[in-house]
Amino acid sequence: MSEPHVRPDRNAISAFDEDTVVVPVGPGRYTAMLSDRWHIGDKANGGYLLAVATRAMGAAVAEATNHVHPHPLTITGHYLRPGDSGPAEMDVEVVRVGRKLSTVTSTFVQAGKERIRVIGTFGHLGDASGPTFPDSGPPDLPPPEHCLARSNDSNLPMNGQKIMDNIDNMMDPATKFLRGEHGEQAVMRGYVRFADGREPDVWALPFFADASPPSIFEVLEERIWVPTIELTVHVRAVPAPGWLRAVMRSRFIQDGFFEEDGELWDSHGRLVAVSRQLAMVFRS
Amino acid sequence: MSEPHVRPDRNAISAFDEDTVVVPVGPGRYTAMLSDRWHIGDKANGGYLLAVATRAMGAAVAEATNHVHPHPLTITGHYLRPGDSGPAEMDVEVVRVGRKLSTVTSTFVQAGKERIRVIGTFGHLGDASGPTFPDSGPPDLPPPEHCLARSNDSNLPMNGQKIMDNIDNMMDPATKFLRGEHGEQAVMRGYVRFADGREPDVWALPFFADASPPSIFEVLEERIWVPTIELTVHVRAVPAPGWLRAVMRSRFIQDGFFEEDGELWDSHGRLVAVSRQLAMVFRS
Repeated sequence: MSEPHVRPDRNAISAFDEDTVVVPVGPGRYTAMLSDRWHIGDKANGGYLLAVATRAMGAAVAEATNHVHPHPLTITGHYLRPGDSGPAEMDVEVVRVGRKLSTVTSTFVQAGKERIRVIGTFGHLGDASGPTFPDSGPPDLPPPEHCLARSNDSNLPMNGQKIMDNIDNMMDPATKFLRGEHGEQAVMRGYVRFADGREPDVWALPFFADASPPSIFEVLEERIWVPTIELTVHVRAVPAPGWLRAVMRSRFIQDGFFEEDGELWDSHGRLVAVSRQLAMVFRS
Repeated sequence: MSEPHVRPDRNAISAFDEDTVVVPVGPGRYTAMLSDRWHIGDKANGGYLLAVATRAMGAAVAEATNHVHPHPLTITGHYLRPGDSGPAEMDVEVVRVGRKLSTVTSTFVQAGKERIRVIGTFGHLGDASGPTFPDSGPPDLPPPEHCLARSNDSNLPMNGQKIMDNIDNMMDPATKFLRGEHGEQAVMRGYVRFADGREPDVWALPFFADASPPSIFEVLEERIWVPTIELTVHVRAVPAPGWLRAVMRSRFIQDGFFEEDGELWDSHGRLVAVSRQLAMVFRS
C-alpha cells in the first residue's frame, strides 16, 4: 500500500467519475448508471448514492447559476430503500438561487421505486472570509504504511466487499475491531483514498463520509446490520491531493438508534468535511 | 427562577402550542399563524420555523400512517430567507410510508416567498430495541438556581429579545460570554425550558435545538451575525418533564463557515436530541 499512488493510465476515466456520471435528459431530469463497484454485499453503498445525487444537484445548480455556486456545502439524504446497480433517474428542483447560496432537492429512483430523497445547499467555499478558530486538529495516526490495510487481500472483518476493490483504507492499528476484539469507545480512525489514483474532490466527500466501517463495530458484536436513516455531509474545504484521514465516532447508542459523526481531513491537515448520520441497529 | 414551574392556568393553551398550530386546508396543505413571541430582533427564531414545519409534517404522517409513526426522528431544514410573524403555508409531501419509518418533506412559504425547505423521517422511538452504549453523559452543571439567568430582566448580552420572554435559560456560570469575556472553546451549557410551564416534548426539541445563544459567541466578538444555512435535529427520546440541559459546541470555525453541535438532555439525565447546524459568520 505504500507504492506510489498514480493512476495507471492518466487518460483513463476514474472508476468514481465513470460511476457518478449524470446525463441531463430533460428540464431538471438526470439519469445515471450505477455500478456494482461500490457495493457492500449486494447493495450500493449509501455514500455512493448520495454522491450520484449530489452530482445531479450540482449540475442543476451550475446551470441555474452559471457555475458561481460550485461547491456542495451541506447535503442531506434520507434513505428510503437500498440502492442497486443499474439505471437511476433523478428529478432535481432548484428551490432557490440566492446571491451566496443555492438550495436544491433531488429524488433518486430505480426501477420505479425511490431510494433516497436528497436536499442540499451549494455555494462557493471562498465566498466566506470570516475567522478560523479550530479547537481540534486531524487525528493522530501512524503513517499509512504502519496502518492495517482493510483490503480484500486480508482476512480482516468486513472484507470481501466489492467496494474494497475500489478504495484503499488503512486503519489505525489501535483499532480493536480489526483484531476481532472490542474497544472502549465507538471510534475508528484511518486513511482512505480511491484505489485507482483518482484524487479526492468535493464530489468524492459525500462518498468518503460513508466509506469507513461503522464505528459501532468497535464496541458491539459484528452480527448486526446498521441501516442509515439519514446522512448529512458538510463540505468544509476543497481537499488537497493525497490520503484523506477519517475519524468516525458514535457517542450515543441508545435503544437501537445511534448517530455516527465523521470528520475528513486532507493531506495538508485541513478539515474538508464533517458528517453525521442517524442509523438503527438490527441483529442479523 | 427557582419558583415552582407551574402554568398559571392549567387549562390555558401554552404559547408554544398556540404558536405552532397547523391547520389542514387541503390535501397535504397546511397553514399556520406565526407569532412574534419567538423573535430574535425582528425575525423569527430558526428553530421555531423548523418546529412549525415539523408539526405540519407530523400531521401528514399521522394521517398517512394512522398515528403509528408519531415521533420526528430526524428533521433537516434549509434556510432560504428569514421568517416573519404572520401567516405561513406549507405543502407537505409524504414521500414514503414504510413499516418502521415514514419520510416527508415540507415547503414553508410566507408572503409568496419560501423561507425554509424541510425533510424529515418519522417513526416510533420504541420500535427499536437494540443496545444502549453511551460514551458520555449529560453536562455537569450546578443546579439551575446557581446558574445565570439569560432573561430580559438582566443586563446580559443577547437579552431584550422577544424570545427571552417565553423561555427560561439558565446558563452555566462558567460561561465567559455572560461576563463580556472570551473563553478557550466555543461551548455553552445551560438549562432551558418554556417560561409558561409547558413541559418539553418531541415537538419542542427542534425549537430548543436552536434556542441557546450561538456557542461561537464564547470565543468571538459579539458584533457578528451568524445565519443558519441548515439545521438537522435527531430526536432520540421523549423528554421527561422539567428542565432540559443543553450543550452547544462549535469545534471547527473555518474561513467563515462553522458547524454547531447540540445535545439536549432531560431531567432524568437521558439524551433526548442531538443537533447540528451549518452557519456562516458575517461581521455586522
